[in-house]
Amino acid sequence: MTESPRYLTGDGDGIRDFIDKFDVFLFDCDGVLWSGDHTFPGTNETLELLRSRGKQVVFVTNNSTKSRADYKKKLESLGIPSSTEEIFSSSYSASIYISRILQLPENKRKVFTIGETGIEQELRAENVPFLGGTDPAYRRDITPEDYKRIAAGDPDLLDPEVGVVLVGLDFHINYLKLALAFHYVRRGAVFLATNIDSTLPSSGTFFLGAGSMSAPLIMALGREPVSLGKPNQAMMDAIEGKFKFDRSRACMVGDRANTDIRFGLEGKLGGTLGVLTGVSSKEDFETGPTRPLAYLDKLSDLLGSS
Amino acid sequence: MTESPRYLTGDGDGIRDFIDKFDVFLFDCDGVLWSGDHTFPGTNETLELLRSRGKQVVFVTNNSTKSRADYKKKLESLGIPSSTEEIFSSSYSASIYISRILQLPENKRKVFTIGETGIEQELRAENVPFLGGTDPAYRRDITPEDYKRIAAGDPDLLDPEVGVVLVGLDFHINYLKLALAFHYVRRGAVFLATNIDSTLPSSGTFFLGAGSMSAPLIMALGREPVSLGKPNQAMMDAIEGKFKFDRSRACMVGDRANTDIRFGLEGKLGGTLGVLTGVSSKEDFETGPTRPLAYLDKLSDLLGSS
Repeated sequence: MTESPRYLTGDGDGIRDFIDKFDVFLFDCDGVLWSGDHTFPGTNETLELLRSRGKQVVFVTNNSTKSRADYKKKLESLGIPSSTEEIFSSSYSASIYISRILQLPENKRKVFTIGETGIEQELRAENVPFLGGTDPAYRRDITPEDYKRIAAGDPDLLDPEVGVVLVGLDFHINYLKLALAFHYVRRGAVFLATNIDSTLPSSGTFFLGAGSMSAPLIMALGREPVSLGKPNQAMMDAIEGKFKFDRSRACMVGDRANTDIRFGLEGKLGGTLGVLTGVSSKEDFETGPTRPLAYLDKLSDLLGSS
Repeated sequence: MTESPRYLTGDGDGIRDFIDKFDVFLFDCDGVLWSGDHTFPGTNETLELLRSRGKQVVFVTNNSTKSRADYKKKLESLGIPSSTEEIFSSSYSASIYISRILQLPENKRKVFTIGETGIEQELRAENVPFLGGTDPAYRRDITPEDYKRIAAGDPDLLDPEVGVVLVGLDFHINYLKLALAFHYVRRGAVFLATNIDSTLPSSGTFFLGAGSMSAPLIMALGREPVSLGKPNQAMMDAIEGKFKFDRSRACMVGDRANTDIRFGLEGKLGGTLGVLTGVSSKEDFETGPTRPLAYLDKLSDLLGSS
């Protein structure tokens, strides 16, 4: 932690050696490949260089509102070619965690979701039954009758087969969904969050993120959810479960010391690479508490390796 | 804090002496006067005894969804006679704080509210202009256009005269209201909460309380609101501002050590009186960190004073 990171911009030999050390590059996206609607010059060429050298490229995103297929479209709209297989989102991470890691009793396999369609698509792809989410039946006001039915545990409102509550960013959050999620967890459901980012960049400013959707439940329950997004290692475990890579030969690339770089360090990856096109500054990387193995002014500086 | 409270049940002389020490009795309601829909036997007789001895009785409630007039009706429905003047709710407390204590610049006097009609009635009674709340215009989904308008500070969506955001329990909470409240505070509005109770008893179980409505904003903003409910002293200041009582001659009566009794102790009232008909136990009162001056099995034990 006390070692200074290596500054690689302009250091051709250093860059070549760095790239050679790894088989897999995990990329944070916003602030690394693009900012807002603007793709950084050289992003595609850099990804192409890595792919041409046989590196596995993985786009790691905490965005839970989009499925991998949706996210591929987003990458395309930004002019970045990708395959669905290269994308790892927090909704996919959560679905894998539920279907492959959680050992749910046979009669407790349903998931009550707070979130948008991305979560539902990924749960469906893993054959996980779910309710809540975008179902219009839950987009209504809570009624006096609902309180009584919830208190009585009416199985038509509180499905007894729900064993998991999964909370992601939901632009249609309402009191009814929160009340149901609250009571499912009180009755024993596992409390999961796709990610706990408090805010979300959009339109050049910030809005409430997925973590802010879990916040009412955290306060009312007095409990934290297991988060399946960065920097939580449940996401790294899910990525490893899918790509079966050697952690010592993997590198996490990101713009935020306290999430991306921390995610790579705590995951004991062989390397972490910071870029200065996002949140963290040169000073953060050089002298902050969470320092990458190396850093660059910008990702496309990797092109200067020969 | 280390002194043991006096147990007054059955101690006629002790009770008479205790009552004589005070001119004002502040009552927590649920768990003291009633539980759920069930008024405890002797509640009215006890209140009558106090009134007949010239004591000022004040019902102190964190319920923000009701105005004082609404709460009087609630008391009546439980068979407890009262006057509006005896009622002090967190929505009234917040309105008084805004109108009489906060010194808002002339062009920043509007309040954006998250909450139900009780808040609006009390703001109206204090001539405080407000928006948000129960206005149907805010009961809709957020649109892509809204993000841009919020980012651009469109004055038709973000009223430049809003100087306060006041958050109470809102059964119609949605992403649009949260996004607007978030941006108002980011632009400098004072962040207030009627109260921060995480849960609310209803129908024999618990639901999300007003504190859970502030929780997404607290997480996204990284800031806590000033709370105008128990146990925060802003509420005691507001009560004192209205009733002009001598704190040394006032007693707080409640069932919860960590809110009601704490409220009275931190407010440096002359006395605090616990009752065992609610949340806290004999052990809590006898040996817990927050101990009342005295306690009773039940409120109506005060009738045994002669």
